[in-house]
Amino acid sequence: MTAHGSSTAPADLRSTVARHWTATEARDWTAVASTLADGVVYDLPQTRERIRGKEAFLRFYREYPGDWHVRVERLVAEGDQVVSWIHARVGPEEMHAITFFGGDAEGRITTITDFWPEPYEPPAGREHLTERY
Amino acid sequence: MTAHGSSTAPADLRSTVARHWTATEARDWTAVASTLADGVVYDLPQTRERIRGKEAFLRFYREYPGDWHVRVERLVAEGDQVVSWIHARVGPEEMHAITFFGGDAEGRITTITDFWPEPYEPPAGREHLTERY
Repeated sequence: MTAHGSSTAPADLRSTVARHWTATEARDWTAVASTLADGVVYDLPQTRERIRGKEAFLRFYREYPGDWHVRVERLVAEGDQVVSWIHARVGPEEMHAITFFGGDAEGRITTITDFWPEPYEPPAGREHLTERY
Repeated sequence: MTAHGSSTAPADLRSTVARHWTATEARDWTAVASTLADGVVYDLPQTRERIRGKEAFLRFYREYPGDWHVRVERLVAEGDQVVSWIHARVGPEEMHAITFFGGDAEGRITTITDFWPEPYEPPAGREHLTERY
């Protein structure tokens, strides 16, 4: 991201991830690209799909169907690990997504692991402990 | 957890969460209880269920059916926010769970928000970008 490769300050993956989501919501693909390492690997454990490389990943985002919107609910960062919890909206459908990011020494994203939990009905037998919201 | 309430050192929620999962896997309910604030609130956004208070929460864990096992895959901690990614096994079924924890000044868990993403078939139309693993 910066010209001076000799910097010894730890790069800030937290701010990279914040920029990643802002740029994604804005469909600013140049800015999204600047958050990614060339060899970024994107994993979806629920489908066991993997996408390798910045170009394929950007194409996946660009081609993603629907009028989707993303908003960051929470970011938790520790060194070269960042987790985001986003609220996603595609038309009338609302979803949560939780994403684990890893980064390189320059603060670019090298790994993305995405989870998309879906609503389900509570199993019977625990109504004595729970309320609904 | 400690007797000296005058401590000014920030309590370590990361280690509390690590103990929480170790004690949970061991069914050591006394140790699990020691990781929790009395007023802990547990949310399951997928079912919109909420459990209030340490006693109800412990009962939920104790009564949870099946021969379940949990193993921490990743912990990401930032101040009073910790996220865990665990691998859970219930008999032959294997799942991921992602949990957001919040804590109090004594490093006890005050909020738990749990996501249980399930496997699904990849949508058609992105095979040109993905491989399966």
